Amino acid sequence: MTQNIYDDEGFFAGYSGLPRSIHGLDMMPEWPALRAMLPEPGGARVVDLGCGFGWFCRWAAVQGAASVLGLDVSAKMLARARAETADPAITYQHADLDRLALPEASFDLAYSALTLHYLENLAGMLAVVHRALVPGGAFVFSAEHPIYTAPVSPGWATRADGGKTWPVDHYLSEGPRSTDWLAKGVVKQHRAVATYLNLLIEASFTIVRVVEWAPGPEQIAAHSEWADEVERPPFLLVAARR
Amino acid sequence: MTQNIYDDEGFFAGYSGLPRSIHGLDMMPEWPALRAMLPEPGGARVVDLGCGFGWFCRWAAVQGAASVLGLDVSAKMLARARAETADPAITYQHADLDRLALPEASFDLAYSALTLHYLENLAGMLAVVHRALVPGGAFVFSAEHPIYTAPVSPGWATRADGGKTWPVDHYLSEGPRSTDWLAKGVVKQHRAVATYLNLLIEASFTIVRVVEWAPGPEQIAAHSEWADEVERPPFLLVAARR
Repeated sequence: MTQNIYDDEGFFAGYSGLPRSIHGLDMMPEWPALRAMLPEPGGARVVDLGCGFGWFCRWAAVQGAASVLGLDVSAKMLARARAETADPAITYQHADLDRLALPEASFDLAYSALTLHYLENLAGMLAVVHRALVPGGAFVFSAEHPIYTAPVSPGWATRADGGKTWPVDHYLSEGPRSTDWLAKGVVKQHRAVATYLNLLIEASFTIVRVVEWAPGPEQIAAHSEWADEVERPPFLLVAARR
Repeated sequence: MTQNIYDDEGFFAGYSGLPRSIHGLDMMPEWPALRAMLPEPGGARVVDLGCGFGWFCRWAAVQGAASVLGLDVSAKMLARARAETADPAITYQHADLDRLALPEASFDLAYSALTLHYLENLAGMLAVVHRALVPGGAFVFSAEHPIYTAPVSPGWATRADGGKTWPVDHYLSEGPRSTDWLAKGVVKQHRAVATYLNLLIEASFTIVRVVEWAPGPEQIAAHSEWADEVERPPFLLVAARR
């Protein structure tokens, strides 16, 4: 079973203090790129796979979604999401995405932000999501980029010219990676870009757009600490269609 | 216009001495993976974009292709391809793939091996290839992997544990890269994986399969000099469908 690190006391406290946890989508620098890949949510039945504090669910409801189902494995995150939401269009449910069950042909949009790299059974989840979408329905997700997750000891190095470089190894050795981020021993599943795409295709999705995301010049001007990110993309964004 | 390095005397001499130039497909370690992505060529009308010495053209003809058109910008390579081929199913033609013209709906299979990373006008070529294929026709290609082409000063580094690592930088800075390989100043065009895929999608192709290729255990057992390649894929292989 996938590690539920978000219910770890120390991790949860650290995660709750991140800008994206306090300020939501506006402090999620990849959000404008992800939003540009989404269909208009007005009138849509939406499911958010790994909804966390519910920022996307609330955004979708404000945009006029007919219904929004937020799923997460973390009881702590769901508790805060519920406490901060009174919108009757939104429902939050506990779910282990490695054992996902959803009603068939019931959603127009499935969304997942920075969650899939935790899952062990991605193929199984994609099959469920495909069946849960109506024909023509959209699945849009972000995940940590495989260039970012590949190294067994990830971290920046310095180039001969003084700039930063990201040493890549074990790219084709897919499987768990244990890193220390907000807590010791956070386990993620490294998969190649090709694997994300082929699993989607094998689940009968059509690939619509792929974005290897890094902050743009205006974002870096406002957050100089993001300048190195352009050397290698931290996030992979994909839009697919049933 | 794309550099025609293959007609450089020194480069051509060096390239002609490579195992894949002397022994063809059998010494092209990515060939089994690429072949597995191809439709059966029996009866097909085939175009090879960047045919080089014509190894693939001859293979396709032996497999029963109805016709094979081999295109290349290098006069030297076409001369050797013609000298080594007497099969009436094969035609070789000089072509600058950045200014490609092909008849509409005339091919069942378009193939390109390690050529696209030289092209400046990939979007234009893909539009021509899409129109040149019949509906359902296949486009299968290999290119140098963007992880491989990204760094401005590419090369291996050593990890703390003694293994090899491939420092990646400038991944999202697409454009020309000048490297010294068989000759000084060989110019390739670095593009992100997402760009290859989005250009295909924008040309109305459907992505069928993506392979980030490195040699397998049996190949490494036979060629220990390839062992480091598994740390990061040297080649990107894509199958798409009109």
